[in-house]
Amino acid sequence: MSDSRNTPSTLEVALGSRSYPIHIGPGLLGDPQWLSPHLAGRQVMVVTNETVAPLYLARLRQGLGDDLEVRELVLPDGEATKALASVERIWDALLAAGFNRRCTLIALGGGVIGDMVGFAAACYQRGVAFVQVPTTLLAQVDSSVGGKTGVNHPRGKNMIGAFWQPRAVLVDTDTLATLPPRELSAGLAEVVKYGLIRDADFLAWLEAEMPALRGLDAAALTRAIERSCSLKAEIVAEDETEQGVRALLNLGHTFGHAIEAHQGYGNWLHGEAVGTGMLMAAELSARLGWLSDAEVARTRAIIAAAGLPLAAPASMGVEDFLAIMRLDKKNLDSRLRLILLRTLGEACIHDATPTETLTALLEAFPRR
Amino acid sequence: MSDSRNTPSTLEVALGSRSYPIHIGPGLLGDPQWLSPHLAGRQVMVVTNETVAPLYLARLRQGLGDDLEVRELVLPDGEATKALASVERIWDALLAAGFNRRCTLIALGGGVIGDMVGFAAACYQRGVAFVQVPTTLLAQVDSSVGGKTGVNHPRGKNMIGAFWQPRAVLVDTDTLATLPPRELSAGLAEVVKYGLIRDADFLAWLEAEMPALRGLDAAALTRAIERSCSLKAEIVAEDETEQGVRALLNLGHTFGHAIEAHQGYGNWLHGEAVGTGMLMAAELSARLGWLSDAEVARTRAIIAAAGLPLAAPASMGVEDFLAIMRLDKKNLDSRLRLILLRTLGEACIHDATPTETLTALLEAFPRR
Repeated sequence: MSDSRNTPSTLEVALGSRSYPIHIGPGLLGDPQWLSPHLAGRQVMVVTNETVAPLYLARLRQGLGDDLEVRELVLPDGEATKALASVERIWDALLAAGFNRRCTLIALGGGVIGDMVGFAAACYQRGVAFVQVPTTLLAQVDSSVGGKTGVNHPRGKNMIGAFWQPRAVLVDTDTLATLPPRELSAGLAEVVKYGLIRDADFLAWLEAEMPALRGLDAAALTRAIERSCSLKAEIVAEDETEQGVRALLNLGHTFGHAIEAHQGYGNWLHGEAVGTGMLMAAELSARLGWLSDAEVARTRAIIAAAGLPLAAPASMGVEDFLAIMRLDKKNLDSRLRLILLRTLGEACIHDATPTETLTALLEAFPRR
Repeated sequence: MSDSRNTPSTLEVALGSRSYPIHIGPGLLGDPQWLSPHLAGRQVMVVTNETVAPLYLARLRQGLGDDLEVRELVLPDGEATKALASVERIWDALLAAGFNRRCTLIALGGGVIGDMVGFAAACYQRGVAFVQVPTTLLAQVDSSVGGKTGVNHPRGKNMIGAFWQPRAVLVDTDTLATLPPRELSAGLAEVVKYGLIRDADFLAWLEAEMPALRGLDAAALTRAIERSCSLKAEIVAEDETEQGVRALLNLGHTFGHAIEAHQGYGNWLHGEAVGTGMLMAAELSARLGWLSDAEVARTRAIIAAAGLPLAAPASMGVEDFLAIMRLDKKNLDSRLRLILLRTLGEACIHDATPTETLTALLEAFPRR
């Protein structure tokens, strides 16, 4: 397993005593040198789902040494699994196995698995080690970086959770070979987001390379993941608990969460809703006089090129959006707080959007 | 409300950006100057229980300003309430009220309320502010200081939780007037613990003042609470997440948790189990050659003077203790890790107790 492909890029997320590495590259999953250094003790529980288990669980087990007490827990796939009841299953399994505070949880799967397992680790015996092994592009560029963990509540997404950092993140780019195209597009939404909020050069590179990315070109994917993780790591290092600049990562998310909440979690993929939400944010930014029509057109074009929806659900009226957005946890003391674009490559936090401007955007935005 | 009694002592728990004050004194509960500075925003939820609500909820409401959105949640009393289901009730109430990330939870009650509300705050929208208003001696000297929050699991005490610091702790010594004598003794167990593990002078002072403490002498209680919080604050500041010295605070707790778990939580009070557990730890320390018979006798005498049990439950055999203690979360990688006494006023972490020595102690220790 130690062939010559096996020299990953490594980013360090700088968080003082909670700093951790992100290894990115092909062939990492079955190679013991990447997992072993990050285990807290001998007790290891791998948590994955029914889709990922047959594809990658055996290979991950190869990457664990022999002198370990390894348990596996396979949960159902899908956003509906991202609930407190699943976290309780993890805790029950840990206690049934007699696992102590020096155990390590490994999250093998997409963002749902990563968020849930991270939260289970954050609260098991007041916090144990965990390692993220994200197998979707979305998880690789977003939810495996930054320490946000949690589950959904019937009244809202990610309402219950904790900030809890992994010991390490292993991004094995080989796992993207089995990713459905729709999920690849959902991951690309977050990649495009990094360009829109912070890096105009990266955005231009993405405009050129989008066909290669959708065609699973390994070099292009590796560079896109690296740059995305690097931009997110910079932001997270500046603002670990989302008091300031980190909020910019939520571009498109307030609109997107409203779509997900209204449609029922899992019917729209998170990245799809964020893609449409970013276009809504861009159009609102134009109504506030910040983006030109040409910049909105570029935004629409790259979201389309990524294979993402350009219209909101036909069943969602203006009031549906407003009611859900007002509950969003990013709204402090009932002021609607949105992430908008000053220009392409520069986002801002805005809590003074006139209601009539927002309403006009919500009325005019296409439905399908 | 601002009479001359109202000049509390204030300790600062030094934890960098998470530092917080502990105000101790009479008459704090109804005085707005103590609560108001610690609220994160306008949304406030007071969580208490059915015993405490009729006694102190109205007085606490007086201590909240008028310009707030205040909700109340009254839970059943008792250790059985300290479960994930209760935390879910808090989260449901917060979401039903539309409370956002800038809300504040106030825990009004004993250790169960404090631990649960702290955990609810730790995980609501990945962490919101909370203030502890402990109304039992145990909570005042122990569970309101140090940021340990959590709930019990059917397989073990405090298995699910988080480290989460309050914004402030308000100890109104007037609330002890309504505390049942048995609960006062349970709180004194933790007070005695601080003397045993770290402060021989304080232990000697307690030997002299125990009758005054049990007679609710206000000055003696205030001094005992201050010194206990101060000792605990010192230890927590040295070791926030229990990697080292903080473990010393668990003197008597591994034995005590075994008693509580075997008897069913709530049948023995936590402090009662810790009292008996400290005597077991002292006797084991003597068997290891560290304490003299006279020191064990002093330990037994002060535990008795505090009104605490000197014998373990008749129904608990040696194997019952061993089986539960091995699951205790303080045991790393299956080594039994105990807090013992080198001398009175100095505790140590010991993970090399010979099984036969422990077994002999468990066989010889009195039952009732």
